[in-house]
Amino acid sequence: MLTQDIRNSFIDIADLNQLKSDLNDLQPVDAGEYITQLPKQKRAIAFRLLNKHHAIDVFEYLPPEVQEDLINYLHDIQVAQIVEAMSPDERAELFDELPAGVVKRLLHSLSPEQRHATATILGYAEGTAGRVMTTEYVRLREGLTVGEALCKIRRQDEDKETIYYAYVTDDNRTLVSVVSLRQLIFTFPDVLIKDVASDRVIKVKTETPQEEVARLMKRYDLIALPVVDREERLVGIITIDDVIDILEEEATEDIQKLAGVSGGDEQALSPPQVTIRKRLPWLLGNIALYIGAASAISPFQTVISQVPVLAIIMPILANSSGNVAFQVLSVTVRGLGVGEVTPKDTMLLLRKEILAGLGTAVALGFALGALSLIWSPPHERWVSVVAAMVMIVNVLLAATLGTLLPMGLTRLNLDPALISGPLMTTTLDAVGFLTFLSMISAALRIFG
Amino acid sequence: MLTQDIRNSFIDIADLNQLKSDLNDLQPVDAGEYITQLPKQKRAIAFRLLNKHHAIDVFEYLPPEVQEDLINYLHDIQVAQIVEAMSPDERAELFDELPAGVVKRLLHSLSPEQRHATATILGYAEGTAGRVMTTEYVRLREGLTVGEALCKIRRQDEDKETIYYAYVTDDNRTLVSVVSLRQLIFTFPDVLIKDVASDRVIKVKTETPQEEVARLMKRYDLIALPVVDREERLVGIITIDDVIDILEEEATEDIQKLAGVSGGDEQALSPPQVTIRKRLPWLLGNIALYIGAASAISPFQTVISQVPVLAIIMPILANSSGNVAFQVLSVTVRGLGVGEVTPKDTMLLLRKEILAGLGTAVALGFALGALSLIWSPPHERWVSVVAAMVMIVNVLLAATLGTLLPMGLTRLNLDPALISGPLMTTTLDAVGFLTFLSMISAALRIFG
Repeated sequence: MLTQDIRNSFIDIADLNQLKSDLNDLQPVDAGEYITQLPKQKRAIAFRLLNKHHAIDVFEYLPPEVQEDLINYLHDIQVAQIVEAMSPDERAELFDELPAGVVKRLLHSLSPEQRHATATILGYAEGTAGRVMTTEYVRLREGLTVGEALCKIRRQDEDKETIYYAYVTDDNRTLVSVVSLRQLIFTFPDVLIKDVASDRVIKVKTETPQEEVARLMKRYDLIALPVVDREERLVGIITIDDVIDILEEEATEDIQKLAGVSGGDEQALSPPQVTIRKRLPWLLGNIALYIGAASAISPFQTVISQVPVLAIIMPILANSSGNVAFQVLSVTVRGLGVGEVTPKDTMLLLRKEILAGLGTAVALGFALGALSLIWSPPHERWVSVVAAMVMIVNVLLAATLGTLLPMGLTRLNLDPALISGPLMTTTLDAVGFLTFLSMISAALRIFG
Repeated sequence: MLTQDIRNSFIDIADLNQLKSDLNDLQPVDAGEYITQLPKQKRAIAFRLLNKHHAIDVFEYLPPEVQEDLINYLHDIQVAQIVEAMSPDERAELFDELPAGVVKRLLHSLSPEQRHATATILGYAEGTAGRVMTTEYVRLREGLTVGEALCKIRRQDEDKETIYYAYVTDDNRTLVSVVSLRQLIFTFPDVLIKDVASDRVIKVKTETPQEEVARLMKRYDLIALPVVDREERLVGIITIDDVIDILEEEATEDIQKLAGVSGGDEQALSPPQVTIRKRLPWLLGNIALYIGAASAISPFQTVISQVPVLAIIMPILANSSGNVAFQVLSVTVRGLGVGEVTPKDTMLLLRKEILAGLGTAVALGFALGALSLIWSPPHERWVSVVAAMVMIVNVLLAATLGTLLPMGLTRLNLDPALISGPLMTTTLDAVGFLTFLSMISAALRIFG
């Protein structure tokens, strides 16, 4: 809202003093959004108007391509200051996007401590805890008292990402226990840390997938989660704001993969060529699949010319079982995604889907049968019975596959959303048409 | 994992002492899960083994139906203690589920302060900030020093949901500014609160929708957000753990609504009758829609018996444009859901989707044309040209509607996910078949 006003009134960067005061009054994310939507050559001008501390905060909220752009425009000293002050996880994300030469120069300008932190994070694979963690956390020794711990926290750099938890380690940096700032505040200063800290620490390894990180933090209502290496030494923490981004990303992927977008991470405003690349393979793949189905149907052309009502019934059959497949898939994949069900609930879920599927199948079969009865000429009324039967079988098949396939993929440690809706609908079409046409042609041979 | 072990070894509640120590060692959410999966009559036994403080925490993690069950089994005094200690927002959620008589009795047993808090929350509509907020927050007066504020925070009930932010109010309880515990810790004790607190407070009204709450907290990386009434008086705060639940819920709704599950909040393990109720209306509605389409196709039965290859081409046409519709819808609806695009980006998005759609349409049209060429008998090869053309038009229509419909609904303040995939595919089928068959029958009249 604020951004909107600014956008309208200052698009010309007419009055620099006014803009400076406005920009410095904005929340970092809003100032970042304002700068991002400026024309390229004006971004550096606007960015230079920010006070030093504000500039560092705003920079973290800029998209990587704008950050890269600014790095080319700003003085090296200013760039060095900003990059030094970034949190190590944000910095790693930026370095991922920059050309290798620029990264090398920037790494060189960092303090040894920050260089080490960045190198550590960049050493872990994308999508793991090691990659999303920050190395700025509060670490305490076991022997301290609560009062000493609070003093130590006060003396720490104010930049630590969260001071709301402190992690207690032994002499080998092994994570021993955790204590919240809340507990420290509520405890008398001369109590020993080890007497308040909890040794039931929920932690992850550096290689833990980010979805598992998000699941744990959500389950245990944590605002920070410690990350340890293979020797159980504390190497970083993951904060709640990163987890929210991870959860949103995962949900977007689930939705898009189900709908047949490869990789499932298309942005709404991606360029058209990216969109085509993410969507066309699935569509063409489906047509290829259909060739198999259609070649199987092709011999039935004479049947169709004998009973043309089939051409009306078949699309309804395909449409309905496809819809059921999408419904079942969306509920199963999402249930797996939020951890509501796991592969060990397969039989439970299958039982429910078959029961619900039976009700649905009978209702849809009845509806299609009735419609076929109306549309068929009098001597072909028997077609409606076959249509109803095939509808029932196909809907039950949709319910069964929609449950079993995602569950099976999860059991194989694959992504359940790989079974996209399009793949399911094509398969169901093929099976449904073949069954239907075979039955009709058999009936024609027997009764015709 | 822990829960799994416990589940296997203690399912008989054989050794109560061992179970007691194990249950009290578990995280509240894990203990809650263990109790939930016990047979009804054993839940109260297991719950009574929990230490008093732990029992209160565990109770908040139980599903409402298990809470209700326990309330009937436990002694009134124990129930009163637990309900009194629940956070007001969790308590409101429980009261929503309980029979009115039980709620009345429980409200009566509460302290006046907690009764008031609960009544306040229950007074707001579901899905608003007022309903998800808690009334347990730290409030400071403007005149305090940092030292006094820290003392006051220490003297507060340890149960405040978050002490990481304190809210500064004037004599009318009007929200004036906010200060983080972090700032208090890093500031000298004799500094005045008003000199450290920030008066750029991000806040919401009690009637703000929960999605907007989630959007703001995500955007500004907040771990708590203050809620004010119409007179700008502070009435509660919303904490980050509630926001994560809201975001997940919204994503689940988006996915399921797109796939045609009414209301979009079906649980994977809902009973079959709930499932049927949520899914069947859409499916039957679609068949009803199809009646219109099919009645329009019905007169073309003679065309189909003349050119039976149409019965093979039509399902591919329907399948492909339906798939494109699902892809476009999923990207648009999700983009709107996470705030990546807004209705004012409609033209931008449409331009991209039409450009991408053109590429996709030509590729799919070419593929279908080529296939039709193979399947058609020599004298009907011209059908493949019509098939390719209709495919191109239908895919472009899918891209256009998939963008414009969700955008239009959002502009009308309706839920963009109301345009479910099934509705779109049925519409596209109808338009596609009609166009296709009309063109074929016109061609037959002209050339045939």
